Amino acid sequence: MQIDPALFEENERTNPAENHRQFAEVGSLACNAGGVLPSVTVAYETWGTYTGDNAVLVCHALSGDSHATGWWSRIVGPGMPIDTSRFFVIGTNALGGCQGTTGPASNAPDGNPYGSRFPIITIEDMVEVQGRLLKQLGISELLCVAGGSMGGMQALEWTIQAPIPVRKAFITASSSSHNAMQIGFNEAARQAIMRDPKWKGGDYAVNDQPVDGLSIARMVGHLSFLSEQAFDIKFGRKLQKKEAFDYKLGVEFEVESYLNYQGDKFTTRFDANSLLIFSKAVDYYRVESLVGSESDYLVASFSTDWLYPPHQSEAIHQMALRAGCRSRHLQIDLPYGHDAFLLDAEYQGAALTRFLAE
Amino acid sequence: MQIDPALFEENERTNPAENHRQFAEVGSLACNAGGVLPSVTVAYETWGTYTGDNAVLVCHALSGDSHATGWWSRIVGPGMPIDTSRFFVIGTNALGGCQGTTGPASNAPDGNPYGSRFPIITIEDMVEVQGRLLKQLGISELLCVAGGSMGGMQALEWTIQAPIPVRKAFITASSSSHNAMQIGFNEAARQAIMRDPKWKGGDYAVNDQPVDGLSIARMVGHLSFLSEQAFDIKFGRKLQKKEAFDYKLGVEFEVESYLNYQGDKFTTRFDANSLLIFSKAVDYYRVESLVGSESDYLVASFSTDWLYPPHQSEAIHQMALRAGCRSRHLQIDLPYGHDAFLLDAEYQGAALTRFLAE
Repeated sequence: MQIDPALFEENERTNPAENHRQFAEVGSLACNAGGVLPSVTVAYETWGTYTGDNAVLVCHALSGDSHATGWWSRIVGPGMPIDTSRFFVIGTNALGGCQGTTGPASNAPDGNPYGSRFPIITIEDMVEVQGRLLKQLGISELLCVAGGSMGGMQALEWTIQAPIPVRKAFITASSSSHNAMQIGFNEAARQAIMRDPKWKGGDYAVNDQPVDGLSIARMVGHLSFLSEQAFDIKFGRKLQKKEAFDYKLGVEFEVESYLNYQGDKFTTRFDANSLLIFSKAVDYYRVESLVGSESDYLVASFSTDWLYPPHQSEAIHQMALRAGCRSRHLQIDLPYGHDAFLLDAEYQGAALTRFLAE
Repeated sequence: MQIDPALFEENERTNPAENHRQFAEVGSLACNAGGVLPSVTVAYETWGTYTGDNAVLVCHALSGDSHATGWWSRIVGPGMPIDTSRFFVIGTNALGGCQGTTGPASNAPDGNPYGSRFPIITIEDMVEVQGRLLKQLGISELLCVAGGSMGGMQALEWTIQAPIPVRKAFITASSSSHNAMQIGFNEAARQAIMRDPKWKGGDYAVNDQPVDGLSIARMVGHLSFLSEQAFDIKFGRKLQKKEAFDYKLGVEFEVESYLNYQGDKFTTRFDANSLLIFSKAVDYYRVESLVGSESDYLVASFSTDWLYPPHQSEAIHQMALRAGCRSRHLQIDLPYGHDAFLLDAEYQGAALTRFLAE
């Protein structure tokens, strides 16, 4: 297998300029878990021209946003599998997020941030809000809904709720239900935030969030995004800008510097409460049947993705077949771990291109 | 494969009553990494009667202590593979620990805890200190040195330094060198401690340590000790003492409760600075050759141990063969992840019994 270490760098490009972000008001929401949001704003972006049968909705993972041509630049763009010169592509920031859509850092009607008052959100709520937006935009059918990780859960849920008809769903590196290990990683991340004194029960000032807890949470995330092999390719035992150990508690190895850098950088663009809300949403999610779905499925997984192991994708595929749907599961042998869904254009990209042309 | 979920509970028994812990003064130590300890105390326990050719040293992992019949009750005890009715068994608390051997929480000559002044310790230093103790005890040869994880590194190092001759080494679930992923997990744990405001640069009061950071660090550890399969067997998606979700940020699933419990319990028996010192020791360790070793090796690994994957044990085995030593690598198919080295008596135990009888 040919390994290109430079590939890993692509994963840095997840939050570029806000570009042509737009906003829509989609009304009040009675949340699936019981809470109420008096009004919901959705941040979204579109690319291309709508022709009635070419709409593709792209759903982001835990740390993403509406800018799908940024964080999924190998999949979404002109000439890419989700070809913005042929399709009308919509990216939205998920409900509960911190990139323009209503979330814990948004102001409640009293003019103060929701903070601890923000309700628990489910994947079902995210899809409800996206459905309202797409109806407002005059979209009557989705050619495809696509997403990886948490985005794959939204894509899966779209084929169940189908607020507008969904012809195809591309679900990569995802799951119909978190297992105990996935919940465990999320819980360690949540505790890192919630045990930071600066979290203050969720009611911190927006410009003074629990940065250390959030940074630790993101480090735990990055540990789960790479595989052992990916860590070895990327870092090995290389030292951080030195020839010999300093023998101190601080950074010695490159991998240590990387984790601290990723953790700290994340705190400049992401709200700690949004991470809590998203991580709960994916832990709660569980699909047991796709009976009634009218969609075709392309499910992709990666051999070294131990966070979302291929057998979880196979379970989605089998569930789709049992529901009488057309489905394919593509298991891809790449060394990049969970991050592969962001990095791989070649294998999942080719399959997605064919899937969209069928 | 027969799975007994009750097996997992055994892992709780890592820190029972202190029993017949003894203490020895082994003098000052010029540490491998440059620091100096003016005097070193070693906490140790022994079982059985020394007959000149029956001494077995048991080395503990990161969270263990001298009480080998406690944390390794399936391997060490009367009638067990390391049979305390036949062998003279010695357990020591490793240098840098917090169970009686000199560590960061011990008082320096000025009467205050070392804290941030405690030097970086290496696996080589741990073995030097154990060697001095065994010489004091009048032991002229080790029939065997045995350990798992960090204890396996000490066992491996014993065959290199051999302060007294070592006939056999049993090294289970361990490595001759941490890879980037292993260092990464340790770094996330270290940062959780060091970013806790109560850490205070390492100079906290011994009775007021950074409990939240230490608890998070331990949760990260536990995530790496189990396998996906072990998490599923042990917890699945079972809820914590309820029938339905509460939809809140707190604990919903049993696995969340388990991680918080393990994390918090750990803070009542372990010093945060000792965790830092031990985790650095294992990250620094690297063996590239066993040329000169006079020992026989039994190396064991577990199929689902992704923290210390079997290929790392195979590397030790191959290194031993290249050095002209007798060696065997036993790869055991069990679902318990890294914890398997504490839980498995049947497979590694049988092999160890034969190895000691050869």
